[in-house]
Amino acid sequence: MNALSRLIPPEFAPGTVWLVGAGPGDPGLLTLHAAHALTQADVVLHDALVAPEILALAPQARMEAVGKRAGDARTPQLRINQRLIHLARAGHRVVRLKGGDPLLFGRGGEEALALAATGVSFRIVPGISAGIGGTAAAGIPTTHRGVAQSVAFATGQGAAGEPEWERFARSADVLVLYMALRRLDCITPRLLAGGRAADEPVAFISDATTPRQRVVITTLGQAPEIARGIDRGAATLIVVGAVVALGGVIAAAQLTTPMTLVPVSRRATA
Amino acid sequence: MNALSRLIPPEFAPGTVWLVGAGPGDPGLLTLHAAHALTQADVVLHDALVAPEILALAPQARMEAVGKRAGDARTPQLRINQRLIHLARAGHRVVRLKGGDPLLFGRGGEEALALAATGVSFRIVPGISAGIGGTAAAGIPTTHRGVAQSVAFATGQGAAGEPEWERFARSADVLVLYMALRRLDCITPRLLAGGRAADEPVAFISDATTPRQRVVITTLGQAPEIARGIDRGAATLIVVGAVVALGGVIAAAQLTTPMTLVPVSRRATA
Repeated sequence: MNALSRLIPPEFAPGTVWLVGAGPGDPGLLTLHAAHALTQADVVLHDALVAPEILALAPQARMEAVGKRAGDARTPQLRINQRLIHLARAGHRVVRLKGGDPLLFGRGGEEALALAATGVSFRIVPGISAGIGGTAAAGIPTTHRGVAQSVAFATGQGAAGEPEWERFARSADVLVLYMALRRLDCITPRLLAGGRAADEPVAFISDATTPRQRVVITTLGQAPEIARGIDRGAATLIVVGAVVALGGVIAAAQLTTPMTLVPVSRRATA
Repeated sequence: MNALSRLIPPEFAPGTVWLVGAGPGDPGLLTLHAAHALTQADVVLHDALVAPEILALAPQARMEAVGKRAGDARTPQLRINQRLIHLARAGHRVVRLKGGDPLLFGRGGEEALALAATGVSFRIVPGISAGIGGTAAAGIPTTHRGVAQSVAFATGQGAAGEPEWERFARSADVLVLYMALRRLDCITPRLLAGGRAADEPVAFISDATTPRQRVVITTLGQAPEIARGIDRGAATLIVVGAVVALGGVIAAAQLTTPMTLVPVSRRATA
């Protein structure tokens, strides 16, 4: 990592909060800013979905799990905001670590506004959202010449609320749905009513970019039935559009080994 | 960077190609995989828009500029594909480095298919797209509770082609337009015809996440006139939607210092 040592990271000052995207799972998809923040943090408030290999990059930090898994809201957003403010005022370097990107279905905007209103300095560190990194890991381009010229992202549940699906259906050539697995029975007929075709290809991408990644390809018409067979404990992204058909060819040929972490014990004997 | 030394990057084998997203500009928004690839590369085929601070992370590599700036197609895509295949077959570690993300308006899908068809092993390393990282740098959340539940991305020019703007207009709460500055005279009336309001806020974000970043806020009705005053040499992202109004509050409070690079001369004397 020689030339990288020439990079000077910005200071992570005590009493500030960094709202950090952890990416989809593979620690190699952390940004340099995110990795720097983890090594400097005093406290890390993290979502349930953040991989243990990523949390292990901040062994010096106190960990607080504040995440929500699909369906159960564990810590109310207001409590998280207050905790961030409290920890920053106590002089800590605070990382608020979220799966994916903090501002795309991540509620980072609410946290940023709460910090701004109370005069706490903060930084937003964008992350690789599952819609970008998970699709790539499945070999699916989000746009492709002659196939898809636009892409739209929505969520099937969560604080942002859901779109008017019939209208959203025709919005873009590719639709990327976050946290929509449990609600596909309801969403699919509305996408069909909005003009999507029943034989359009659909991909379910679970635990993207991790060693547990699974990709299931089907059609929009079959999607609700296929959804019932998919593990609801996994984070699953759903992609609708002709680009899904390219995924098979690309995924079969591409290398996808994630970064791995040397266990502390192995390292001690090295 | 102590705990980070426990991460084992995947091997970048000779004779393979990595299609790498360089992010929007700030070297701190490179992923760990991207940084690793740059330090290992023998040859880097890069777009014109990639920042010199990022290219400087691969001092050992031969650099080949193959990029296109808006308007002038410098190297035809077919020639780039052939060059990637040729260099890989000659046994090089080849990085194809693109601004943003390789698969979102990046033509990485075409390169991946060409490599797959000729049996060249490749890896896709997703990057922070300007629509994620540039919006964050301007303080604009791409989704926000009660304000925006969906976001759609399209391009005003480029190989992917353009969407049917009237239909795209209603697609999502937030519209993010890449490379649309020169065509806003044509696109804006079509977005208005498609149902967007003339008083909706619009942000122009130029050279996002670099020291030259500039953000101009206006309304959709005024956008074509404002566009004429914006430097066409800069990479400019256009965001349409109510979330733009949150950007002012967040941007005023947030820290955004990029990673900087120690010049080689300064380092030699240290």
